[in-house]
Amino acid sequence: MYPVITISRQFGSGGHSIGEKVAKQLGIPFWDGEIVNKVVEEHGYARELIEEQGETTSQASKWFDISAASAMYFQSPQDEIFLAQRKVVLEAAAEPCVIVGRCSDYILRSAEVRCLNILIHADLEHRVARVLERYGDIKDVDVKKRILKKDKQRRTYYRYYTDQQWGAYDNYDLALDSGVIGEDCCVHLICELAEKLNV
Amino acid sequence: MYPVITISRQFGSGGHSIGEKVAKQLGIPFWDGEIVNKVVEEHGYARELIEEQGETTSQASKWFDISAASAMYFQSPQDEIFLAQRKVVLEAAAEPCVIVGRCSDYILRSAEVRCLNILIHADLEHRVARVLERYGDIKDVDVKKRILKKDKQRRTYYRYYTDQQWGAYDNYDLALDSGVIGEDCCVHLICELAEKLNV
Repeated sequence: MYPVITISRQFGSGGHSIGEKVAKQLGIPFWDGEIVNKVVEEHGYARELIEEQGETTSQASKWFDISAASAMYFQSPQDEIFLAQRKVVLEAAAEPCVIVGRCSDYILRSAEVRCLNILIHADLEHRVARVLERYGDIKDVDVKKRILKKDKQRRTYYRYYTDQQWGAYDNYDLALDSGVIGEDCCVHLICELAEKLNV
Repeated sequence: MYPVITISRQFGSGGHSIGEKVAKQLGIPFWDGEIVNKVVEEHGYARELIEEQGETTSQASKWFDISAASAMYFQSPQDEIFLAQRKVVLEAAAEPCVIVGRCSDYILRSAEVRCLNILIHADLEHRVARVLERYGDIKDVDVKKRILKKDKQRRTYYRYYTDQQWGAYDNYDLALDSGVIGEDCCVHLICELAEKLNV
């Protein structure tokens, strides 16, 4: 009934890890960095460019906004990456899988693919602790600022390509605070739900 | 760890029913209409007044906004009802229980009572179907309009007394779309979570 699970996540909330474990437990493919690999493979873009612009809006795209007429003829590199990623998301969704980010909830809803849409969030304190635990004590970097900037970039990217507000509760079937609930319990609840709904 | 469960809900989403079943399953008291009973009992207000103004903002309260100086000395009937309900919520939270609505998530957070905060929502189509199923085919009433009005009243009430946006995802530990997930599965997931967190 819901063969595809999309995971939207705040930076540092553990959404990637939760999605990976859900996919493993359900025995279905997992798409996150794999989307980048596929786009590199198919289009020959530099990996760094996709990693940098794959979920953040760049000045280039904003510039193209100025002239609607120009935008009809030219695509910014970011628009091309969005379309390439969109194609990968649609192809991946041909079989049961878990997809992280990339506006996949919106892309699949627009394409009328039925999905189970999940949101993973956590308060800043939990996310800072998680990032420090994962990447160690990063010197010369203000972790809080980095997290907030990443959130803002993803929100803006989502807004730009979907014209919707990131995190609006009615876009998700299930939203979980991983800081309160814990990563393993999030995985458990998502898998329980998937099982109940016969994913 | 989380002895109190608060349920915020959209009108017609089944939040009341889900909360009641969760309380029954966990063997703890349930507070919804019971809050009204207690306020009637303790303050002698007319039941109709509390049912009408217990979660909706009235013109009276809006009028009091105009003069901050007056508001320091006078309380609108609605403000008095809010304070009476707040007292009941705080007293109820002295033991494990489930509380529906009445800004209980905000009231208890402000009082530093640890809670598990749940949001139940559903799309309009599911809610219309549920209201019609529950109350029968109500003649001369536009059910859609009634639902949207009730949502707006509750949103405005929440905004008025908490200065926060109703439905903001970071206010909830778990948010569920009861239209997609189904009432019984919502109950199951909330009880699973409560058990995992040792409510």
